[in-house]
Amino acid sequence: MNLCSYLKMKKHILVVPGDGIGQEVTAVGKKVLEKIAEKFGHEFTYDEALIGHAAIEAAGNPLPDETLEKMRASDAVLFGAVGHPKYDNDPSAKVRPEQGLLKMRKELGLYANLRPIKLFDELLSASSIKPEILRGSDILFFRELTGDIYFGEKGRENDGDTAYDIARYSTYEVERIARKAFDAAMTRGKKLMSVDKANVLETSRLWREVVQRVAKEYPEVTVEHQFVDSAAMLLIKDPRRFDVVVTANLFGDILTDEASQIAGSMGMLASASIGDGTGVYEPIHGSAHDITGMGLANPMASVLSAALLLDISFGLKEESDAIINAVDLVLKSGVRTRDIADADTPKDKILGTDATGEALLSYL
Amino acid sequence: MNLCSYLKMKKHILVVPGDGIGQEVTAVGKKVLEKIAEKFGHEFTYDEALIGHAAIEAAGNPLPDETLEKMRASDAVLFGAVGHPKYDNDPSAKVRPEQGLLKMRKELGLYANLRPIKLFDELLSASSIKPEILRGSDILFFRELTGDIYFGEKGRENDGDTAYDIARYSTYEVERIARKAFDAAMTRGKKLMSVDKANVLETSRLWREVVQRVAKEYPEVTVEHQFVDSAAMLLIKDPRRFDVVVTANLFGDILTDEASQIAGSMGMLASASIGDGTGVYEPIHGSAHDITGMGLANPMASVLSAALLLDISFGLKEESDAIINAVDLVLKSGVRTRDIADADTPKDKILGTDATGEALLSYL
Ligand SMILES: CC(C)[C@H](C(=O)O)[C@@H](O)C(=O)O
Ligand SMILES: CC(C)[C@H](C(=O)O)[C@@H](O)C(=O)O
Repeated sequence: MNLCSYLKMKKHILVVPGDGIGQEVTAVGKKVLEKIAEKFGHEFTYDEALIGHAAIEAAGNPLPDETLEKMRASDAVLFGAVGHPKYDNDPSAKVRPEQGLLKMRKELGLYANLRPIKLFDELLSASSIKPEILRGSDILFFRELTGDIYFGEKGRENDGDTAYDIARYSTYEVERIARKAFDAAMTRGKKLMSVDKANVLETSRLWREVVQRVAKEYPEVTVEHQFVDSAAMLLIKDPRRFDVVVTANLFGDILTDEASQIAGSMGMLASASIGDGTGVYEPIHGSAHDITGMGLANPMASVLSAALLLDISFGLKEESDAIINAVDLVLKSGVRTRDIADADTPKDKILGTDATGEALLSYL
Repeated sequence: MNLCSYLKMKKHILVVPGDGIGQEVTAVGKKVLEKIAEKFGHEFTYDEALIGHAAIEAAGNPLPDETLEKMRASDAVLFGAVGHPKYDNDPSAKVRPEQGLLKMRKELGLYANLRPIKLFDELLSASSIKPEILRGSDILFFRELTGDIYFGEKGRENDGDTAYDIARYSTYEVERIARKAFDAAMTRGKKLMSVDKANVLETSRLWREVVQRVAKEYPEVTVEHQFVDSAAMLLIKDPRRFDVVVTANLFGDILTDEASQIAGSMGMLASASIGDGTGVYEPIHGSAHDITGMGLANPMASVLSAALLLDISFGLKEESDAIINAVDLVLKSGVRTRDIADADTPKDKILGTDATGEALLSYL
């Protein structure tokens, strides 16, 4: 038996495209995984399942039990996006695509959402932020994903005239996400920023206490506490001040979308949602119904999600790097999807979803 | 009796410097008000009162009754900032400077916080955002200020192991801030963006329902609903897409700090908090203890707060414009405080708080 057969991996991957451009971009992500398997001699098997609006249409449920079972049974999930404009304009709809996403996060215990914000050199000019401010930015967000105001009780009072949402955090929830972030800080610049609103919120005061306590286990890491309003400002003013960031669910939602502008476009950003079971890998961008079906979506975020999947869930660092390298080479070749093109991009270099996917495969 | 004596106004202004640089900047704001009174023949009287850390030190209470009474008895309040690093590092402190600020907002019924984000031409290059993205940006935020997760019950459960905060909104609260924002939209570009997180929060779904209903009263206004994560991203990507924005307390806190980068610096941004009684005018920036007492703070935000005070509480548009014009002339003269200086600013044009104030007075 040669070395290769030891290193050969058998893994089962569930593809969950969800809604809108989720379909188009995960198709490219999957192709990239297939190519990697072929090139490195792994054996990946695939299945597909429904979530979000697609699942409501097919089964009346944004997260059918069958999907959840398939997720639990798989080694990793490549996820697309959920959402549909229909519900956005109808705030009173009882069944909503996002419920599927949130239930998945809770059921799979995906408490840590990692969002690396890394700027590809070639995209330095694609951002609305000045290149001299951006150059060298490299941020890793740890967004808590199964607590906060997302999962507390919510409802109406006074005959529907008053609405409420409860934000809640327990010590163990803050501890486990803080540890993940501190562990990552130890492998990077040994700098951690914790973002909260401890001057107003009790959940943030608990958050800050726990982070201060966990910090004692990591004496080498320099910790900075920022209020969320100030962090939102500093992220644009001085992105290089950020290295590893840990924050609550809602603040993480807002700050990571904002931070996408550091990378030039949301279309370039992947995320990993991990916990104790199956990990889920998905773009930061949403279902983007305005361009759905037009073949215009940037598949890079899904492809980079596949890279995170290989690295984090399967420990396949070399394979993961091969994908990141291919993305880099495609960008260097001048190819751009519409969202990252600028005035200097030649028309014939502006490609759609599938052609960008082909270009990526050719560099693998 | 000549016309002037009709137009002559008698008003009583309460100056509440608060903490940190609040002292230094409101001193300049007050001088500008004095100069305006002299120039336009008004009679402004002044008093002072304590709030925040300063009030805790003097009276053990972040908002002494005496301060509140003086506020109620005055025609307008020129406010500084509150906060102290001591409390930020001690999440368990029971008495906190910010409690004074929040209680003031609630007691005076200051439900609408107006934050104009206007870029002075001279500062186009001071921002971290590209000038070609910024040019022409002019945003007016309406942040709801007396509801949301700021004012719901908060506390601990499970022997302190779990913390919670309740966000709450009632129909009338959303209606009144929405109306203020729509009214402003009618006097500007007839465009309004409402920001919420209606795909997750019940309070946001109520918010969106009410805004949709109020919108029917303003058929000429084009309304756009954005999720807060998306809005945080768009604000940097495409600030000109924004005109009048209305949003909840917490989202407004985050988005307006972020938006300060559009104006080059927080040091340039004023806000007006209004409701049914006395209006309060204050910089968006905080107490900035890192530069307190060094005479470095930018007094422009306090000076522009004084301009808002004259315009909104006293209806003195010409006087208000005179101040804005003086700020513009100071900037045109090349004078900069440290926060808005750049590599091209000659050293002798970088002035401190008082010298900047003198420059302002000389243009009035
Ligand atoms: C779709 C929405 C519920 C979701 C969230 O707020 O978590 C999305 O914005 C995200 O960041 O994954
Ligand atoms: C000091 C703090 C409580 C306050 C807030 O969050 O409202 C401040 O950030 C503001 O925006 O006025």
